[in-house]
Amino acid sequence: MRVAMIQGKVLPIEELESIYLDRGIFFGDGVYEVVRSYNGKIFALEEHLQRFTRSLAAIQITGVEIDQIRARVQRAFDAAGIANAKIYFHITRGSGLRNHVGDAGSKPNFFLTVTELPDTTQEKTKGIAVSIHPDWRWKRCDIKSLNLLANVLARQDASRKDCAEAIFVDETGAITEGAASAFFVIFGQILQTAPLTANILPSITRKFVIRVAEKLNLKVTEKSLIPQDAHQADELFIAVTTKDIVPVVKFDDYVIGNGKPGRYTKLLIQEFQKFVI
Amino acid sequence: MRVAMIQGKVLPIEELESIYLDRGIFFGDGVYEVVRSYNGKIFALEEHLQRFTRSLAAIQITGVEIDQIRARVQRAFDAAGIANAKIYFHITRGSGLRNHVGDAGSKPNFFLTVTELPDTTQEKTKGIAVSIHPDWRWKRCDIKSLNLLANVLARQDASRKDCAEAIFVDETGAITEGAASAFFVIFGQILQTAPLTANILPSITRKFVIRVAEKLNLKVTEKSLIPQDAHQADELFIAVTTKDIVPVVKFDDYVIGNGKPGRYTKLLIQEFQKFVI
Repeated sequence: MRVAMIQGKVLPIEELESIYLDRGIFFGDGVYEVVRSYNGKIFALEEHLQRFTRSLAAIQITGVEIDQIRARVQRAFDAAGIANAKIYFHITRGSGLRNHVGDAGSKPNFFLTVTELPDTTQEKTKGIAVSIHPDWRWKRCDIKSLNLLANVLARQDASRKDCAEAIFVDETGAITEGAASAFFVIFGQILQTAPLTANILPSITRKFVIRVAEKLNLKVTEKSLIPQDAHQADELFIAVTTKDIVPVVKFDDYVIGNGKPGRYTKLLIQEFQKFVI
Repeated sequence: MRVAMIQGKVLPIEELESIYLDRGIFFGDGVYEVVRSYNGKIFALEEHLQRFTRSLAAIQITGVEIDQIRARVQRAFDAAGIANAKIYFHITRGSGLRNHVGDAGSKPNFFLTVTELPDTTQEKTKGIAVSIHPDWRWKRCDIKSLNLLANVLARQDASRKDCAEAIFVDETGAITEGAASAFFVIFGQILQTAPLTANILPSITRKFVIRVAEKLNLKVTEKSLIPQDAHQADELFIAVTTKDIVPVVKFDDYVIGNGKPGRYTKLLIQEFQKFVI
């Protein structure tokens, strides 16, 4: 008899709920998105759905209707009734006995949560500290997949160092991005961030940051940088959907500028708010 | 109200079973093992438990007692009563609302299945075809983690090419290993396989294969090779727990030797059986 065991409990495999055989857990065989709302309105949902569509295609998960996903996101958001909400959702290739190739007939599994966004006032007004970590991620970080162990390990390392984010440094010594954010450096009136390659997630917040920066007459340069560049920057910040822009005032024990959020970073935070009304 | 959504169904997040919030599915934040039995006896369980212990330590999952895991594996195997069984088990860091760092108090989740091994007689007697795929995996393949999307994509690509396994080739052009196996090449009386680095899983079957090869007076060389080397090899094979040794008779459309399992490969398969009695 085929059996399964959950913690210490044995049961026939046929009695397992299908979630236990989800390919998401066996292989991380799925993709996800995180969107947020500002004051009762979901922000940039179409951009996130477009990226989600690209991620699904990149790992060849088929049979997903984006119109249905859009409707589900909206329905769950409405049911929650949380004005400033974080909406997480993923789709996996389906459930089945573990085998790498998967069954042709398996149906994708959809899962979503709506929760309150944490309060980021303090992070935004005081800034955060970050630390570097080797970029151990796979070579297709342009796909927003459920394979995030490298990100978890980097974040845990940062947390032990009392840092709020880990900044990845690749084998060539270049900064790629944050474990769960895009990373930006300001020198004078130049805003610099890594170019979008296979090792960078095409961050939606990054796109809006660049748009805002151009409105503020900052020159935007998409070019890799190294930790030594960051040490000497005038300002640093990270960008992530759930918090938009967060100033970085300490980078691997180097105090940035005067240790307070920089002038342009504050202007960017202010200007970003105009997009989200 | 915090809500979750499973497929199209909305429910309060508090009503979710904890498996839906498993860090295994959110991040692949866990490690696994596959062991097998030969004729009612589990093979090399201690070696697998040792590697599992190393994997757990490498990603800092604590609070797991290996004696308990050993007992659970044995108990589930006994309950199944399958003489030639495949036993899969994983441990994840636990369940909780999604956040990279995780809660200090979360308890690891254990899951296991016992199923029949597929019949490999044909693969072993006729040999299999393999195809190459870029090695997109993360940089810590020495850890047997649940981040296996690169392996899935490579296997699916191989399957579309009517190949039974994908052989990974890294950015330098070197063969690392199979998507779910170790890879071996025979030139004359030399058996060659990639050395154990951070990009190679320390395969337990590999270890036994090397031991068997030495008994057969083959010279074992741990050195990287490139696909062109494989094309010209006298014999090729893969090694994996569930099938031990499987001859490879076609590598990316190149027929190996006379297109039939090689002499030493057959001897290795024969000799390997002596270990498992």
